[in-house]
Amino acid sequence: MIREDPAARAAAIVGHAHVITDADALWTYGYDATMGYRGRPAVVAAAHTEADVAALVRLAAEERMPCLARGGATSLAAGTVPPDGAFVIDLNAMRAVRRLDVAKRRATVEPGAVTREFRTLVAAHGLLYPPDPSSEAAATIGGNVATNAGGPSAFKYGVTRDFVRGLRLVGADGEIHALARPREGPLIDLIVGSEGTLGIVTEIEVDLLEAPVARSLHALTYADDQAALESVPRIIEAGLIPAKLEYLDGLTMEALERARPRGLPREAGGLLLVELDGTSEEVRRDGERLRQVLVSEDREGRVASAGQAGLWWQARTGITASLGRIRPAKIGEDICVPRTRLATTVRHIRREAGARHLPVAIFGHAADGTLHPNMLYDPAVAREVVAAREMLQVVAESALSAGGVLSGEHGLGRVKRPFVATAYDAPTLNAMRRIKHAFDPAGWLNTGAMWPQA
Amino acid sequence: MIREDPAARAAAIVGHAHVITDADALWTYGYDATMGYRGRPAVVAAAHTEADVAALVRLAAEERMPCLARGGATSLAAGTVPPDGAFVIDLNAMRAVRRLDVAKRRATVEPGAVTREFRTLVAAHGLLYPPDPSSEAAATIGGNVATNAGGPSAFKYGVTRDFVRGLRLVGADGEIHALARPREGPLIDLIVGSEGTLGIVTEIEVDLLEAPVARSLHALTYADDQAALESVPRIIEAGLIPAKLEYLDGLTMEALERARPRGLPREAGGLLLVELDGTSEEVRRDGERLRQVLVSEDREGRVASAGQAGLWWQARTGITASLGRIRPAKIGEDICVPRTRLATTVRHIRREAGARHLPVAIFGHAADGTLHPNMLYDPAVAREVVAAREMLQVVAESALSAGGVLSGEHGLGRVKRPFVATAYDAPTLNAMRRIKHAFDPAGWLNTGAMWPQA
Repeated sequence: MIREDPAARAAAIVGHAHVITDADALWTYGYDATMGYRGRPAVVAAAHTEADVAALVRLAAEERMPCLARGGATSLAAGTVPPDGAFVIDLNAMRAVRRLDVAKRRATVEPGAVTREFRTLVAAHGLLYPPDPSSEAAATIGGNVATNAGGPSAFKYGVTRDFVRGLRLVGADGEIHALARPREGPLIDLIVGSEGTLGIVTEIEVDLLEAPVARSLHALTYADDQAALESVPRIIEAGLIPAKLEYLDGLTMEALERARPRGLPREAGGLLLVELDGTSEEVRRDGERLRQVLVSEDREGRVASAGQAGLWWQARTGITASLGRIRPAKIGEDICVPRTRLATTVRHIRREAGARHLPVAIFGHAADGTLHPNMLYDPAVAREVVAAREMLQVVAESALSAGGVLSGEHGLGRVKRPFVATAYDAPTLNAMRRIKHAFDPAGWLNTGAMWPQA
Repeated sequence: MIREDPAARAAAIVGHAHVITDADALWTYGYDATMGYRGRPAVVAAAHTEADVAALVRLAAEERMPCLARGGATSLAAGTVPPDGAFVIDLNAMRAVRRLDVAKRRATVEPGAVTREFRTLVAAHGLLYPPDPSSEAAATIGGNVATNAGGPSAFKYGVTRDFVRGLRLVGADGEIHALARPREGPLIDLIVGSEGTLGIVTEIEVDLLEAPVARSLHALTYADDQAALESVPRIIEAGLIPAKLEYLDGLTMEALERARPRGLPREAGGLLLVELDGTSEEVRRDGERLRQVLVSEDREGRVASAGQAGLWWQARTGITASLGRIRPAKIGEDICVPRTRLATTVRHIRREAGARHLPVAIFGHAADGTLHPNMLYDPAVAREVVAAREMLQVVAESALSAGGVLSGEHGLGRVKRPFVATAYDAPTLNAMRRIKHAFDPAGWLNTGAMWPQA
């Protein structure tokens, strides 16, 4: 009896045109948006249906190959970097919006649907799907589910988990699960954010909101980053719930200006970008209140003109692409700390980066305490490479010691996984291992991501 | 070598005075507030510290005895009815409020703290702990965590899970887990509502709210129960978020009047009791809006006087105690359906009860779709006993077919467990079994409650 190899077996399921085994082509599936992490997958197969996914998962299990799903591969935590020899299931062809019920404000999408395309589609019907990760132009809803993605809107509107009403999931054994709230709510809460390690999501039903009718953009400049960050809890304590509240430091503005000048106040140490939304009356009233907070603070905070605010908001989405103007490579961190600890956390990170003479750009969704310190380095300079790696540890520890968490929205992936063992006590680590084992006893699903090592 | 029996070993841990083995005394630990369910525990030991609980759990595991914790034992789903031969850990002595931080609005309590006593304590500091199950005078915070208890306030303020920030837990192996949000949030979400089947909670940290400054009570009477229930979604769609919105049917009012006359409109088929809270201005505005909903409906709804509303609200908490005025025994159900399906669900239950000539009193927290159909029967009348049991199934099925869930707030316990297998598909049932197995491989923790049978 001739036993076919995994690629031939995959071709029997999805067709030869949808299986990749060529080494050069496979190479492009070996990385994601995280620099410095690579793997060598053995087979890539593109699924077009849920049945494809189930058959491919069973095939990978039979072949004893680590198996992971791939969408936009925009992970910044190496969540979609395949282990060597992995079986990759490409979900980009499963991108349909299957149902959109405008009256009920619900939609059902396939995991490969691109986040921005979906958000634009529902916006055309006066609806809002809030999760807006900065990678939304390429990221997929399935990936957002895997990482429980947030974005600037998360503070006011919530993260992906808050909008997922139902899921279809292929388990480690190829079984298909149909999960819907409220009945299977606790299971859905466990799956969302599990980074493809408990199963592969094949369909997502989401809740939508009515889009707010009015919005206004504001920008507040501060003499230094500490003043900007200390202002954040005061804005929230004043009763404001901004749709977005973004922090940018001087180096981030410098990078943006070098990429495309928009007059960002790079000489200022810290910038807060604020978006207010709601009814026209609410937006007007909140805008007034925002001004009052700044006045009552008696600080060097300064309100920019509406025109400036609009321009600077446009710049905001370009941060990740522009950081290369400072150094060719970066490690983008993603921590979340209590709002009142933002200023001290940033001060600590700057002190440690300064001691290593490493440029670190810091920005983030300040209202909910999410910070993205980006260690910028030149791969050709050994000292910088070492310093950047060291800073990864410094940043993780600073989050934990501030009472925060290792990841705000990117997930743990392979980048943060080594820190999981220090973030939890032994009984909790055991409970985590037991949960992973309950869903994936052989450990084939996205092996090496997220869960603490045994 | 003489091997001591479990009771002697328990006495070595907690002292002889805190171990019960006398058959008559054990009998009182054989039941909870659910009629018709009894067990015969072998040993009851009162724990005074977390170390006691851990040692007792290890002891029960070594003795291969089913083990369950007991607080107020107010379960209406037989969640605290011990299996025969069980080892019961009485937590009523662990009732301290360990910390109350008024400025931070946080408190840390032991599981045996009585819910009403705790709520009264924090209210004296101008704070609100919203979960308010009707059994709060005897129920404990630990029991509320076990069932993820709600109450009339759940619609506006949320259920127990929404207020639990941290937990300490003794696992099936006697290991102690310290869990805190945000880091262990997903584990906390899994433990809350797990009915003591994944571990025994020994300390709970909760969030508190500022108490609203103003409140007002309202009562709306309707010609029949359908009109009352159809009014519920319209009140919510009008943008009102009442602090409480309770539904009482005619038979419930009849029982209350027989127990203590307060002039409840028992001739009316349906009554809605509404509590509004907030600032004085919000309460005034919402009261006006409530009136407008009723007017615009052009129905037989009638607004009672403020005096009547206050009296009727007092009556509300006495329902469970007064149902005995109709029949000596009852099975109290607890389902939750979409708000728009309240009227049809109640109509179906009434039709089935009518066909069996069985009195069924229905009331509940209408705003969030929670209904408590109570099958009232005489244990001496075989026909009624059979009919009540049949109706248990009818009610469970009516909830599922309306897209609802088997339990709104009481938990599944032993009463609803037989229906779990019909409520979920095979892959979901398998996932549930795997989760239970991951935490309690031997299956000793509250054996027989909640989880689907193997």
